[in-house]
Amino acid sequence: MIPTITAFERSPDGGKGLARDTRVRWALEEVGQPYAVRPVSFRAMREPAHLALHPFGKIPTYEEGDLALFESGAIVFHIAEHHAGLFPDDANARARAITWMFAALNTVEPAILELATARLLEGDKPWSRERLPLVADRVRDRLKQLSAHLGTADWLDGVFSAGDLMMVSVLLRLRASGVLDEFPGLAAYVSRGEARPAYRRAFAAQLAINAPLE
Amino acid sequence: MIPTITAFERSPDGGKGLARDTRVRWALEEVGQPYAVRPVSFRAMREPAHLALHPFGKIPTYEEGDLALFESGAIVFHIAEHHAGLFPDDANARARAITWMFAALNTVEPAILELATARLLEGDKPWSRERLPLVADRVRDRLKQLSAHLGTADWLDGVFSAGDLMMVSVLLRLRASGVLDEFPGLAAYVSRGEARPAYRRAFAAQLAINAPLE
Repeated sequence: MIPTITAFERSPDGGKGLARDTRVRWALEEVGQPYAVRPVSFRAMREPAHLALHPFGKIPTYEEGDLALFESGAIVFHIAEHHAGLFPDDANARARAITWMFAALNTVEPAILELATARLLEGDKPWSRERLPLVADRVRDRLKQLSAHLGTADWLDGVFSAGDLMMVSVLLRLRASGVLDEFPGLAAYVSRGEARPAYRRAFAAQLAINAPLE
Repeated sequence: MIPTITAFERSPDGGKGLARDTRVRWALEEVGQPYAVRPVSFRAMREPAHLALHPFGKIPTYEEGDLALFESGAIVFHIAEHHAGLFPDDANARARAITWMFAALNTVEPAILELATARLLEGDKPWSRERLPLVADRVRDRLKQLSAHLGTADWLDGVFSAGDLMMVSVLLRLRASGVLDEFPGLAAYVSRGEARPAYRRAFAAQLAINAPLE
């Protein structure tokens, strides 16, 4: 059975691949699972039919037979658990890959989201200019630690895993700020993720929906 | 083998149970797994020995034989996966419980953390008074949606699961702000979590370390 995911009918990022459906597309491409996409408008995201699938009115969702999931972390986890390619076979290595998924989503992404919020939702506030550097420094604190852990390794824990998929996806949201480039090791790590054929297919697929019409 | 977790040598909350070791203690208590606790000072958290266990220099960590994990989400997941009592047996219900864990940590907690940051780290800034209501409103947006989903149910998806454990733990961090009490259904949900014998044992265990000496 081919699963169906939801994505923005038109992503606010105009096709940069930063919406959370890209993570799920990437995971599906890594494991070679075909999928269908149902685009959802901003209006439809607030309507009962979508809220029944996603209580927070966001994308992506994931439907497969009588299973319906939301949250990109949970969907990527589900894909990794049911297909080979995103979790190591060794039980301890698998537990560490899951740890990196949670670290990406609960320790690294919140700081990055706060920076995005400071720019997008509070950029016109009188405190924005003075506050932005404080918020960016909190991101830098996390990246310093992450960079120290990664060192010169290709991936966070041996071979590429769902933990890397999620961490790269989270770090990508930072590129426009310039902060990622202050950490060349992490910038190279993100580039390694983007160079994977599965990522490129996922990126192209979301771009086909989201790119401005010529 | 009895696992060892780390916790603050003295929690900044003085024993309110809001540090993330409480989530892990609660999960261990729910499944009846004895555990050992190694308290870590703020100085030790920045030293190489601890950073080798937790790249972001935080608590809790989890050690069990040759397995070492960090991130409360990953640790609770590991406990739930290896013991009965925190994940439903049905595969779809289990996937939904995992979804709620991720929703707690990646959709609900970031907004709550931003409110905590606004109070604790930016409370003395000139913009604090004008900005705090904006941040609190972003928390309210999430709680409205969560409250609409929960309705009059006891738990988020049928029986109590690791998803509820994580969501209640996240919402507890909001109580001091007064915002939780604006949503009586969610406040009652949190109280149901706190009333569980396993939570009470976990809370008492952290209190014994953290309460100010009389």
